[in-house]
Amino acid sequence: MITVDEARALVLDLAPEMETEQVPLAEAAERVLAAEVTANRDQPPFAASSMDGYAVKATEVELHAMFKVIGEATAGQRFDGTVGPGQAVRIFTGAPVPDGADFIVIQEDTQRRGDLLTITDEPGPKTNIRPAGVDFRVGSTLSAPRRLNARDLALLAAMNVPAVPVARKPQIALIATGNELVMPGETPGPDQIIASNSFGLKALLEDAGAHVRMLPIARDTIKSLEIALNLAQGADVVVTIGGASVGDYDLVGEASEKLGLQQSFYKVRMRPGKPLMAGQLGEAAMVGLPGNPVSAMVCGYVFLVPMVRRMLGLTPAGPEVKQARLASPLPANGPREHYMRAWLGDEGLSAFDDQDSSLLGVLARSNALIVRPPHDPERASGEIVQYLPI
Amino acid sequence: MITVDEARALVLDLAPEMETEQVPLAEAAERVLAAEVTANRDQPPFAASSMDGYAVKATEVELHAMFKVIGEATAGQRFDGTVGPGQAVRIFTGAPVPDGADFIVIQEDTQRRGDLLTITDEPGPKTNIRPAGVDFRVGSTLSAPRRLNARDLALLAAMNVPAVPVARKPQIALIATGNELVMPGETPGPDQIIASNSFGLKALLEDAGAHVRMLPIARDTIKSLEIALNLAQGADVVVTIGGASVGDYDLVGEASEKLGLQQSFYKVRMRPGKPLMAGQLGEAAMVGLPGNPVSAMVCGYVFLVPMVRRMLGLTPAGPEVKQARLASPLPANGPREHYMRAWLGDEGLSAFDDQDSSLLGVLARSNALIVRPPHDPERASGEIVQYLPI
Repeated sequence: MITVDEARALVLDLAPEMETEQVPLAEAAERVLAAEVTANRDQPPFAASSMDGYAVKATEVELHAMFKVIGEATAGQRFDGTVGPGQAVRIFTGAPVPDGADFIVIQEDTQRRGDLLTITDEPGPKTNIRPAGVDFRVGSTLSAPRRLNARDLALLAAMNVPAVPVARKPQIALIATGNELVMPGETPGPDQIIASNSFGLKALLEDAGAHVRMLPIARDTIKSLEIALNLAQGADVVVTIGGASVGDYDLVGEASEKLGLQQSFYKVRMRPGKPLMAGQLGEAAMVGLPGNPVSAMVCGYVFLVPMVRRMLGLTPAGPEVKQARLASPLPANGPREHYMRAWLGDEGLSAFDDQDSSLLGVLARSNALIVRPPHDPERASGEIVQYLPI
Repeated sequence: MITVDEARALVLDLAPEMETEQVPLAEAAERVLAAEVTANRDQPPFAASSMDGYAVKATEVELHAMFKVIGEATAGQRFDGTVGPGQAVRIFTGAPVPDGADFIVIQEDTQRRGDLLTITDEPGPKTNIRPAGVDFRVGSTLSAPRRLNARDLALLAAMNVPAVPVARKPQIALIATGNELVMPGETPGPDQIIASNSFGLKALLEDAGAHVRMLPIARDTIKSLEIALNLAQGADVVVTIGGASVGDYDLVGEASEKLGLQQSFYKVRMRPGKPLMAGQLGEAAMVGLPGNPVSAMVCGYVFLVPMVRRMLGLTPAGPEVKQARLASPLPANGPREHYMRAWLGDEGLSAFDDQDSSLLGVLARSNALIVRPPHDPERASGEIVQYLPI
């Protein structure tokens, strides 16, 4: 059996690179910018007033100074003349500063009667002018790769970028396998349970930036698995859930090998999730997840989310391991790397008592997976340990 | 002028409550669960094997014990008989434990020749059986309100819940105002700039759970503003951007008052964002944001995201103020609460030098807003201050 790190490296090697596509800015939130974007204008494109007030010559600014107001400059409409000695132009925030002026007296510091303006309060040294290009200049860049957030989008819009190059969304086909499964809303037989992993994994992988297709549940026959694997054609990654443990692995393995699977590895020294497998299936990467619900989700966090990030070009692929203090002690760990369901609160990290890999209720109450190295000794409250936020 | 907290309380008072709608589980990620959901089945619905192995009677389990294998139980298909003395049933993970058996010997601890099974390794005390209902029982609940994540969805699927009651998405109409604005991709005149706030705010508010309509840019005339405000009909919240500063406020105010605006407040003792206004406009809440790009975005974080959370029924509405150590000193603050653009790194929080409210480049490089109370004195490196993660 290989280690988690070795397995993740092999999974990342299988991840195909996504090509670039253009999307309109209004649809670019959370997409991954694929290439640096360059501003082809200055912002502001002209020296602009940062306040509502009056544009004058700085040399003339002093308490009780008087000016004649000769015009107006608004955002979108400059004053088409020059400010001469003793003259002022009414100006609003964002308006171009008129030629001849180099100081904005804010309106709260003035009194106006008709065309006559008087400075009634000491204006101080601030010119209240934003120089051209103070925000960004022609040639300024937004670097890639990055997942575009609201602030990036505002900046890109200001740069006059109507569409951006982003990595195409990885297409992932999810195949739940097992005679025991029915879909939510169906009536399970007495020996059956509800297919739950597909729903959790779909949300997890779409949050990471993929597009997920949930295929019909495959039954525990070679024929049913072959049909499902064929339905997955066109996907960048095919993910099977279940059918990868000792007893029935051969079925998923046999079906995918018949279709040409080049297996990369099978079984990882981890808990939960030991019976993980991965390989290349035609043009697609294939990952076979264990069927226990918590095992499948943990493998999603540990292997599949990094795989999606790699496909999108994000570095590091992750997952991002953090450190926190234990709020309660941990028993010694066995020979496999253990991802313990835990709660991170103000007091620190507490692992749940029952770590059985079937307990979705415990997983839903967790916000962290404590990462225990193989043979990690007992840990006391207050010790620092590693965890994955989930 | 009122304080930020007072203004936010008034904004939250304006927020209409969203009704509940049912959505299919596969589309429920990130939606806000509106009512507690109850499991109407036990999980697992039967005692199940947690391993691949052999189901036997616990009293007969000891090293070198021998059994006759009388059948098989798989996930989805139980063994239709009773395990008697000296008998074993081949069993796979997730399969119902047969009647008469109360222990699963894992297959690694056995040797099998034909129908004859021998225990070849000490099996230990663990029964490898998951009791019925160990994950959850009939009547177990997933509490509301909560924003549904991947783990919640896996649990809801396992509960056999095919659709969930969620809060309807708040519909927000965004109206950028100003003669100086053109949309990205258009060619700005010499005095014009690109409308950027709509794109940033749309991404921010949709990330918070709203649906945002960007309306055409309104020009600085009553008529243009009235047209835009009328186009906003049907929205739960109408957000205008710009036209709310001293100089031209009357325009947005006049247009919205002609349409019946009941103003709640105008101007907030904050920086950036002072010329914020809010009120009730027919059935909708209305918020008038300042036009400076960074001011509008900061008001989005400080007022609009909490408003969306309130509409979705999430508590607390927020925003979530955190604490961190300063990595560099801060100058004394003035009379207004100041939201300083900052970077939170491993060393702590550092405010950017230039806090001008026009600098989208600085905002895009920020991941935190340091919250400075009015008249907050100088702060030294190492002091703890409050911030909003952004």
